[in-house]
Amino acid sequence: MLTEIIVIGNELVSGKTRDLNGWYASGCLLSCGLEVNEITTVGDNYDTLSAVLRRAVERSHFIIVTGGLGPTEDDLTTQIAAKALGRPLSFDQTVLDHIREGTKRLGLTWSPSLEKLAWLPRGAKILDPHGHTCGYSLSKEDAQVYFLPGVPEQMRELMDRVVVPDILRRYTPVTVPRHRVLEVYGLSESQIVDVFKGLKDDRKKVMFGFYPFFPEHRITITVRGKDETEIERQLTGAEDKIRNLLGSYVFASGDKTMEAVVGELLREQEMTLSVAESCTGGLIGHRLTSISGSSLYFERGLIVYSNRSKVEMLGVSQQTIDSYGAVSDQTVREMAAGVKKTAKTDMGLAVTGIAGPSGGTEDKPVGTVFIGLSVHTKVFSGHYRFSGDRDKVKLNAAEMALDWVRRYLNGYPFIPGI
Amino acid sequence: MLTEIIVIGNELVSGKTRDLNGWYASGCLLSCGLEVNEITTVGDNYDTLSAVLRRAVERSHFIIVTGGLGPTEDDLTTQIAAKALGRPLSFDQTVLDHIREGTKRLGLTWSPSLEKLAWLPRGAKILDPHGHTCGYSLSKEDAQVYFLPGVPEQMRELMDRVVVPDILRRYTPVTVPRHRVLEVYGLSESQIVDVFKGLKDDRKKVMFGFYPFFPEHRITITVRGKDETEIERQLTGAEDKIRNLLGSYVFASGDKTMEAVVGELLREQEMTLSVAESCTGGLIGHRLTSISGSSLYFERGLIVYSNRSKVEMLGVSQQTIDSYGAVSDQTVREMAAGVKKTAKTDMGLAVTGIAGPSGGTEDKPVGTVFIGLSVHTKVFSGHYRFSGDRDKVKLNAAEMALDWVRRYLNGYPFIPGI
Repeated sequence: MLTEIIVIGNELVSGKTRDLNGWYASGCLLSCGLEVNEITTVGDNYDTLSAVLRRAVERSHFIIVTGGLGPTEDDLTTQIAAKALGRPLSFDQTVLDHIREGTKRLGLTWSPSLEKLAWLPRGAKILDPHGHTCGYSLSKEDAQVYFLPGVPEQMRELMDRVVVPDILRRYTPVTVPRHRVLEVYGLSESQIVDVFKGLKDDRKKVMFGFYPFFPEHRITITVRGKDETEIERQLTGAEDKIRNLLGSYVFASGDKTMEAVVGELLREQEMTLSVAESCTGGLIGHRLTSISGSSLYFERGLIVYSNRSKVEMLGVSQQTIDSYGAVSDQTVREMAAGVKKTAKTDMGLAVTGIAGPSGGTEDKPVGTVFIGLSVHTKVFSGHYRFSGDRDKVKLNAAEMALDWVRRYLNGYPFIPGI
Repeated sequence: MLTEIIVIGNELVSGKTRDLNGWYASGCLLSCGLEVNEITTVGDNYDTLSAVLRRAVERSHFIIVTGGLGPTEDDLTTQIAAKALGRPLSFDQTVLDHIREGTKRLGLTWSPSLEKLAWLPRGAKILDPHGHTCGYSLSKEDAQVYFLPGVPEQMRELMDRVVVPDILRRYTPVTVPRHRVLEVYGLSESQIVDVFKGLKDDRKKVMFGFYPFFPEHRITITVRGKDETEIERQLTGAEDKIRNLLGSYVFASGDKTMEAVVGELLREQEMTLSVAESCTGGLIGHRLTSISGSSLYFERGLIVYSNRSKVEMLGVSQQTIDSYGAVSDQTVREMAAGVKKTAKTDMGLAVTGIAGPSGGTEDKPVGTVFIGLSVHTKVFSGHYRFSGDRDKVKLNAAEMALDWVRRYLNGYPFIPGI
């Protein structure tokens, strides 16, 4: 069953926008048991798109096309498809009525340019006759072609609700691939590769993949088969093996974020957290509060960017800053204890460091980050040297700080610093 | 001059990773005056990749191939290219010596699997003989093929430093496209489209493109020509026209972020800022501090997630919260005045709202966001209703709050709320 995806848009072949639709569609197709052969990205260009469409229809069974269905004059997909596939445009009054109705219902003003959307290649079937997004399918020889809008939200909605069920009606997967994802933080790619060398024997039945997802790594386990129970057993066996090998470096499975894991632990253990951020500048707070319900455990965050704010708001002593610097073990310990005390929370987490590009010294080069965690009567602290630009240092510092909370609540040791 | 890009990786055709390399390469090629015809994304699959490579060499002049050059067993690009293009692998001792040297210099341990990297298709030329990234070029018939690593940083470095200059040595662009990007916040796509309808006459010489970049919009102006002065004149003319039409909604040109614009204004006007964030949870602080040198104007941020923290740290009165709620005009005004006073800054910015998915009421549905700005003796406030999920509400709330600072410092009116 050859499957391919065609993504259309001038902005995608000129470095202006990164594609989201090819990526999303390929994930959907894989979950149907279909492997995607090729994703082709082209501009709104008659010759190129015609050739790509014709080639696709000749060789593939399922084809997802996204983009270029809108009312503006640079939306050309329907016209090009009509010519390239020999299906002249024909006017569909029901479609027009439906668009008029939708426009009215949404309180939008009618524009004559919307009439264009009611002209479809002969034989096209509207995917969503009662919704308000365009999109249609077309059978041609052995191929089933789905034309979807380029707006990611609309594309995904149609893909999930209409296209995937339609594909599964038309074909019964022989073997279904199922995968599981493990999320890892604190190991380099080569460290992970080394661990995997010991797993080679299993690779016939079970496929492993790994790829960076800065500052984390993802490990995918894929098993193909017919029997869901057997597949599940193999996935679980492989997951257990990896968890044994990588231990506390695996922080989640699925696509859970570090902040979601930390949030669950805090809720389970009925602990509250406050945060004092210097170099991360609010990123830790932003991540914690991206979880709905975080107000149950996240009390407050202080972005203590200036030295004055560290002294005034956290009670860090001016003498500590003068003697050791704002980026120091002594300061981060006072920050962690200070925020816990001020906020009256069970834990206080603090970060101070040099995100760069300026501000580094020989002793404390750019990327130096101190982390402090105050719990009960104890304060833990450590420091790291992260590489990369300002953004990367901030991302790593926030991730490591959250990882400290996760490790503490799980009773795991912290990742040793330098 | 047909140009195409081939992006290789199983993770890219299975929904696991979003491509960065095709996107980046297409931008580089466009800036050389080359339009990219097609970006093809394929897995590490012998048959598919062979066919794609052969087709590319037959029809295109410049071909960028990324991915699959590493030492692991699923890196197959070089082997497949050797067979598909009829260039058997040959061993290159200088390359091996160089890899050995690099490994030593970086303090890495030598692994026999690295020997694989010294086997290249006959006639291949190493792109970076003195660096430590793999990558080579190959001439075949009329085509010049560049094989680059899949790691985005390495790929970009080689692309910028080696590939682009090499392409420009091999071909002199007839007409060069130059573009300019304008960044817009606060207008919907259809509002922008309506404005552009009046510009139709110019479209022969000047091409406009627009695409969403949530929560902003980007407008691109492209002009082709031979004479750089004339191109520049036309770009500036088009930019002026758009700026006249969209006024203060254009917040930057180029790829400057809203926080960079705000930062520049604060520096120029020697103003300092502090921020009190409730529903944005630190995102505004994170964005402000993503700018190097932000400590000159950003004094502190308070993530006042709990009501208690609003009272204790900002001096919001408990009575205000009890009478009007934490998400109210009265509260946001006290928050803005409070943070300005505590931090002793020139401006105090505050945000409170309901990011969802829970917490909405009939009066204040999910997406309701209040913004307050305290400057000198005045406090400005307003409220908005943003649509979308928790992330989108947070993104829009942070952007609107930053836009308030920009508008105040420029003497523009705030975008009216509801």
